[in-house]
Amino acid sequence: MNNKIRIGICGYGKLGRGVESELGKHSEYELAAIFTRRDPAGVNPIDPGVPVVSADGAVAWKGKIDVMLLCGGSANTLPVQGPALAAHFNTIDSFDTHAKIPDYFKAVDSAARAGGNVSVISVGWDPGLFSLMRLYTTAILPVGSTYTFWGKGVSQGHSEAVRGLEGVIDAVQYTVPNDDALTRARGGENPLLTTREKHTRLCYVVAAEEADKAGIERKIKKMPHYFDEYDTTVEFIGADELKANHGGLPHGGRVIRAGTTGHGNKQIAEFSLALDSNPEFTASVLLACARAAFRLSQKGERGARTIFDIPPVLLSPLSAEEAVKRLL
Amino acid sequence: MNNKIRIGICGYGKLGRGVESELGKHSEYELAAIFTRRDPAGVNPIDPGVPVVSADGAVAWKGKIDVMLLCGGSANTLPVQGPALAAHFNTIDSFDTHAKIPDYFKAVDSAARAGGNVSVISVGWDPGLFSLMRLYTTAILPVGSTYTFWGKGVSQGHSEAVRGLEGVIDAVQYTVPNDDALTRARGGENPLLTTREKHTRLCYVVAAEEADKAGIERKIKKMPHYFDEYDTTVEFIGADELKANHGGLPHGGRVIRAGTTGHGNKQIAEFSLALDSNPEFTASVLLACARAAFRLSQKGERGARTIFDIPPVLLSPLSAEEAVKRLL
Repeated sequence: MNNKIRIGICGYGKLGRGVESELGKHSEYELAAIFTRRDPAGVNPIDPGVPVVSADGAVAWKGKIDVMLLCGGSANTLPVQGPALAAHFNTIDSFDTHAKIPDYFKAVDSAARAGGNVSVISVGWDPGLFSLMRLYTTAILPVGSTYTFWGKGVSQGHSEAVRGLEGVIDAVQYTVPNDDALTRARGGENPLLTTREKHTRLCYVVAAEEADKAGIERKIKKMPHYFDEYDTTVEFIGADELKANHGGLPHGGRVIRAGTTGHGNKQIAEFSLALDSNPEFTASVLLACARAAFRLSQKGERGARTIFDIPPVLLSPLSAEEAVKRLL
Repeated sequence: MNNKIRIGICGYGKLGRGVESELGKHSEYELAAIFTRRDPAGVNPIDPGVPVVSADGAVAWKGKIDVMLLCGGSANTLPVQGPALAAHFNTIDSFDTHAKIPDYFKAVDSAARAGGNVSVISVGWDPGLFSLMRLYTTAILPVGSTYTFWGKGVSQGHSEAVRGLEGVIDAVQYTVPNDDALTRARGGENPLLTTREKHTRLCYVVAAEEADKAGIERKIKKMPHYFDEYDTTVEFIGADELKANHGGLPHGGRVIRAGTTGHGNKQIAEFSLALDSNPEFTASVLLACARAAFRLSQKGERGARTIFDIPPVLLSPLSAEEAVKRLL
């Protein structure tokens, strides 16, 4: 008899592969199948024995998957796939287009309720763990300021934006928090920090031999939304150096709540992440949330949830009693 | 018409005074009364208009208090007062005798269920916020090590232990995390750190003029449980210097989870607090939890809860919808 929680992975990019890599660290999970919008024959999972199936045929797996982990992108995939799959499966996703989360929540919620499922949306580290830290620390310290810093780490969106420029062969963009801004945030003086003051951007660019490097640099620095509000440094390097020194996907950041109590007593709370692998960590958060979705579903709950709605102990493999003994 | 949540403070030491100091930062609260085991005439609240009542008469306030914040000590007061008051009021406490929490939970739970109340036990920063960080980060990174460091900060228990020695007029004890141990914990090599390696202890002592200082120092350093497992420094100073430089109650600390994903990718999560006032911060946590207890009680829930059981959004003054918009 097999009592394992059967996980489905929908979308097999970096995040999906991260989920497959980390799933085995949780003894109660087993990977049932990988679903892809590409040709399944072109997908090579870490475990070659895992079924790889067309995402179009996912509904046929109803009853064979306990929780479906949606690993597609927020721009195009999740807005359609999230509600569509929530109608048939408990789901977890990392939808992170912030302004659209309320609408996305509603669409997933109504599909999940109709289908009798639980869907945990927008988890990962930001939104996700960082959101939790903002919520807890703001509730506890109502007088104060909250600061979120990202990096030092690779922003995939910004890297792709640079790669899209003419004459660019490859590029990696790091978001770098400004040390002086960090110190000021932690100082408890509640400074107003501008976008430009909080972060700088650092681009390593491999340019084509004949490319106009000065022109590329100008175009990067003026790119609206992505770079124009930041102080950006552009360095041209060789393809070998890019591969050797900038091939990973490290990231991280910190949330700082600088509050005041009593007669000017400073109370500083800070949560930071330093991640060697952004996709593997995000996958790890999704996997912990899968446990919560499964348990909520077993209790008969229905609908969409954010991490704000979920009793923390439901993410832990421990029972409430064991968690109190070992972790409280 | 008054829709405010009516708070009672039971026990008016440093923590109770902290609750009174911070309560006004939450617009939905009002302070109904302070309960004390001392002579009420000897208690001087910040707001002289607040009723100060004998704790023996608390039950007469049933129906006039929405949440009672228990601000007594864990050694003698809470084991009796916690269950006794949970029978009549929603309660919050900071019970922190770790080994006894499971029994305390059971006693409070059965009283709260019988009385139709919700009791949130063992909140503050450790147990409390630090427990939450241990729970979340361990659930997300199942492979790794968790480290809790305290300080630099004043330990009231250790300060009192020193004050109890013959020839000591006054004393303040700081718990100091060891920088080298912190660096090793963050390094992700999962070191096994002994008690002696993690923290040192620093005592400022005001001795009587005729006292045997060398003898006091020896006695401190050998004191079982409190000092014998640590490297302790003892400095004798004057009463004026103690008052001027060591009169506050700063504290803090950090929880570090050093995990691994994939093929040796280090994933480090760290939560730290740097608190000018330990009692005012602990009071702030109790006040945020009071909101959760009140909401759970309004929903018809009953019994004891720890911070692990409570959906995070219930601590926030925001609705779930607003919290998603502003903080997710």
